[in-house]
Amino acid sequence: MKVLKSHKSFDGTVQFWQHDSEVTKTKMNFSVFLPPGKAKGALIWLSGLTCTDENFITKAGAQKYLNDLGLMVICPDTSPRGLNLPGEHETYDFGSGAGFYLNATTPGYADHYKMDDYINLEIYNILTNQFHISNNISIFGHSMGGHGALVLGLKNSKKYKSISAFSPIVNPSEVPWGIKAFTGYLGEDKEAWKNYDACELIKMGHRHQNPILIDQGLKDDFLNVQLQPEKFKSLCEQKDQKVVLNLLDGFDHSYYFIASRIHHHLEFHAKFIF
Amino acid sequence: MKVLKSHKSFDGTVQFWQHDSEVTKTKMNFSVFLPPGKAKGALIWLSGLTCTDENFITKAGAQKYLNDLGLMVICPDTSPRGLNLPGEHETYDFGSGAGFYLNATTPGYADHYKMDDYINLEIYNILTNQFHISNNISIFGHSMGGHGALVLGLKNSKKYKSISAFSPIVNPSEVPWGIKAFTGYLGEDKEAWKNYDACELIKMGHRHQNPILIDQGLKDDFLNVQLQPEKFKSLCEQKDQKVVLNLLDGFDHSYYFIASRIHHHLEFHAKFIF
Repeated sequence: MKVLKSHKSFDGTVQFWQHDSEVTKTKMNFSVFLPPGKAKGALIWLSGLTCTDENFITKAGAQKYLNDLGLMVICPDTSPRGLNLPGEHETYDFGSGAGFYLNATTPGYADHYKMDDYINLEIYNILTNQFHISNNISIFGHSMGGHGALVLGLKNSKKYKSISAFSPIVNPSEVPWGIKAFTGYLGEDKEAWKNYDACELIKMGHRHQNPILIDQGLKDDFLNVQLQPEKFKSLCEQKDQKVVLNLLDGFDHSYYFIASRIHHHLEFHAKFIF
Repeated sequence: MKVLKSHKSFDGTVQFWQHDSEVTKTKMNFSVFLPPGKAKGALIWLSGLTCTDENFITKAGAQKYLNDLGLMVICPDTSPRGLNLPGEHETYDFGSGAGFYLNATTPGYADHYKMDDYINLEIYNILTNQFHISNNISIFGHSMGGHGALVLGLKNSKKYKSISAFSPIVNPSEVPWGIKAFTGYLGEDKEAWKNYDACELIKMGHRHQNPILIDQGLKDDFLNVQLQPEKFKSLCEQKDQKVVLNLLDGFDHSYYFIASRIHHHLEFHAKFIF
């Protein structure tokens, strides 16, 4: 494991790391912000389609608040890189930059695209072993990464103190992005898909002990087809999962939205981490 | 003039504009942040080498503070685009992305690379005519753009209420970046260079009525060869120009530095704009 680049940021440090992943069997990159002194906890940020480990740390404007709260953030890449699997680099919503935070089972992808284990085991262990944060960990993300945060958080509710999402894909089994990705990574058997679908997980009985926070912009071009967070909200209400869904006028799917609301999410997580 | 993209950001709006510039005789791009309601004033941000109209607005984290202060910012591109002048696209520090905020006089470049007039006349007029801000305007920038802010601000002290810079090139006539650019844009006659060199302008008697703010990181790889802000500070002190030079431990030349200190610069300008 090595630091590729390091930059002072507020009173802390932004670092870009690279390591040999045992899970994906590739080199993997992640970025972190480390607040001054010992961090009181960590947030795992899962990015959306086409993103790398750089988007959040350059664009979200989170450092000031993380600095003041004494929290670190770790931002993994969104897929393995440097492979040449069939169809891996042809479209923005499948393969590289589009790992969907699941363990693939289809030929070729099954050997490397294990982003569920990569985040939930390997990145989690890196927080413990490299950054000495073992318990006070929460998870959040955007779009495909909002899906990842909901799925990983609901299935591992004791590992993650709290879950939040910006503009998440809540029911991937039923929408074009998810159908394409799940078919490619998991095959045609839709039973296997349920394990990676936040709506299905709620139906199956998965719960998180704390409320789930979701922010959704109402000028988001993907709202009606790909996202539909109200489906998740009404399921949660039927099944006694607390959820706060904020539908926000004027905001779109971009990092300008995330930067405008990041403060709110960080303070939400801080309540449960401390 | 048209808006290419628009995003809600905090309670205001980020917009990316394109227009046909009369000065550069090319299409030019700029970005703006517009606070909610009528802006009380505007800041012109001049970016550094390799930047476009996007870097500041995505990475500096200025919107929250501009929003709260009621100020707009306009971020022009760093050179004309879409041309194919001799040597224009060969190196990062000359030609496209490296306009140096001067009016070129060398063949080919003289017809288009008039970034001094573009900022000081055309962008200034756009603030008045398109955004209805006529008087309360300040100027700041980073590196090559810090040079631009110092030079334009000192030569047009009545037009700009205040000047600040991050990591500026203060004496381009004497350092590799400046020598290369000035030779290419202005030719070999070093007398012509003085008109675009902040140190020389101070020697010639140009002054600004308000203190000039400069922030400089001490881990900046360009500090000792390209930047040397203490040269400017000591000249200012000899010549009765007020200057505040903050030398800051640990910070480098990146936008992580700018984001860490942007608040400070915006509050500085607000004092003089209001």
